[in-house]
Amino acid sequence: MPRFFGTPDGVHVGQQFIDRKDLHEHGVHRPLQAGISGTGKEGADSIVVSGGYVDDEDHGDFIIYTGHGGNDPKTRRQVADQSPTASGNAGLITSRILGLPVRVIRGAHRGSSFAPPYGYQYAGLYLVSDAWAKVGRDGFRIFLFRLDRLPDQAEIWTRRPATSDPAFGTATISRRIRDTALSREVKQMYNFRCQVCGGTVPAFGERLYAEGAHIRALGRPHLGHDSLDNILSLCPNHHAQLDLGGMVILDDFSAATTSDLVPFADLTFASSHRVTLENARYHRHLWLAVA
Amino acid sequence: MPRFFGTPDGVHVGQQFIDRKDLHEHGVHRPLQAGISGTGKEGADSIVVSGGYVDDEDHGDFIIYTGHGGNDPKTRRQVADQSPTASGNAGLITSRILGLPVRVIRGAHRGSSFAPPYGYQYAGLYLVSDAWAKVGRDGFRIFLFRLDRLPDQAEIWTRRPATSDPAFGTATISRRIRDTALSREVKQMYNFRCQVCGGTVPAFGERLYAEGAHIRALGRPHLGHDSLDNILSLCPNHHAQLDLGGMVILDDFSAATTSDLVPFADLTFASSHRVTLENARYHRHLWLAVA
Repeated sequence: MPRFFGTPDGVHVGQQFIDRKDLHEHGVHRPLQAGISGTGKEGADSIVVSGGYVDDEDHGDFIIYTGHGGNDPKTRRQVADQSPTASGNAGLITSRILGLPVRVIRGAHRGSSFAPPYGYQYAGLYLVSDAWAKVGRDGFRIFLFRLDRLPDQAEIWTRRPATSDPAFGTATISRRIRDTALSREVKQMYNFRCQVCGGTVPAFGERLYAEGAHIRALGRPHLGHDSLDNILSLCPNHHAQLDLGGMVILDDFSAATTSDLVPFADLTFASSHRVTLENARYHRHLWLAVA
Repeated sequence: MPRFFGTPDGVHVGQQFIDRKDLHEHGVHRPLQAGISGTGKEGADSIVVSGGYVDDEDHGDFIIYTGHGGNDPKTRRQVADQSPTASGNAGLITSRILGLPVRVIRGAHRGSSFAPPYGYQYAGLYLVSDAWAKVGRDGFRIFLFRLDRLPDQAEIWTRRPATSDPAFGTATISRRIRDTALSREVKQMYNFRCQVCGGTVPAFGERLYAEGAHIRALGRPHLGHDSLDNILSLCPNHHAQLDLGGMVILDDFSAATTSDLVPFADLTFASSHRVTLENARYHRHLWLAVA
């Protein structure tokens, strides 16, 4: 049976399930133990949020979810590095890149006011809007995923989730919309050309199109600044490559593929424009968990 | 004074204004007569919606707005073609490409249940999410703009605007999110390579990233189909170029720049994949108003 993405027939958002077997039988979450259902090849189709990791955060409409592995279930402490190729983690990374919808199921636990009082609840479809690595409080590398709930699904919480995160509220909105006044200024400095490849996108009526890319992302959890030293003018291809972790910026301001750290271009800079190494290192760390 | 984009200091969403002079003095809408404030070079910073054109539609959270020119104010009929280089129209096209926020002001008129009972009301910031040409009912070319209200602004209508347009609800959401199951299938047919240039975007962990592009857009007003004959696998650059009217597809399935219709590439097709000429012609017509 091919992996199914989306809400299965006969299942509705908000539906309660007795146990993992019940979830399995309804096709909501197939594995009986793993929290993530998925593989790097296909993507992840569902996750169970059950408060097993100290770095998890549940805000209702969005969730910070810790990847799989290296965790001692008794103490909830990390005892080893997590791997980006472990199937659950690789599945969520693939889901982010492919834009696959992920079913989110909450299990009863104390850590979240959105969790059901008992058993499991299907919370609907979310998108993996961000993925990054960090060295967790126990000194080992973990992977974190941000999932945002897709719009136009049934409201299932009695109170409206706090929207305490306006800066990030735009994260799932298009790159064009996320543009700030400063990013428009940066693009104009370069006449809408890409600082990596020099390319641009012709738009209607002899106009050119480029994108302002924040190296260290705005909003939680990254809390980057909307400042000139954190913005590049990029073509959509290099913007996507930077956002999706296929490219990092090295200390000599060359652009390198993440997998081998081999530089493929030197960034072009206007005389009045610099970005700081701190921002480049922060972005690099997200993917390598090393500076 | 440089053109100001955004809500001026001291003005709040929902604020009432007596007349055009009052709007001018508060920096909400500077021209005293024109409906669109803007130029092709700088973009458009504000528009007044006052029901002057028969093709206008006001849905509260989104608006279909007719461009400037060729209209007889007495009869409200079109008597000439509209021009994409007229400053208001060029301004809104630039705002779309640059992602500039546009102040929307509604004047009292009978055509919209969101219009104020008298004078003018500042409705907040909107983004130009779409722009296209068509031959209107009077036989002349007009330009139409779709504007979508930015999130996280004050609610100013007593009733919640009808969300009668779920397919288009996602138009302002990122291209990644707009992916459908079929567009993922198309991207996989081409191994995440662009049918125009053969390129791809490297993402984290040896993955490749491409985008599924609907030639005739889903949702209103275009009502394209989510079907294999309407989807291309494109790199983000060529997707943006197609979306922003910098590229059209000719009848021999070559890609051409819109301004001169000179082909620069032949689309690559997998043996099991075809797109229909109707969809390519529909897209071309949006920009040229000629088949």
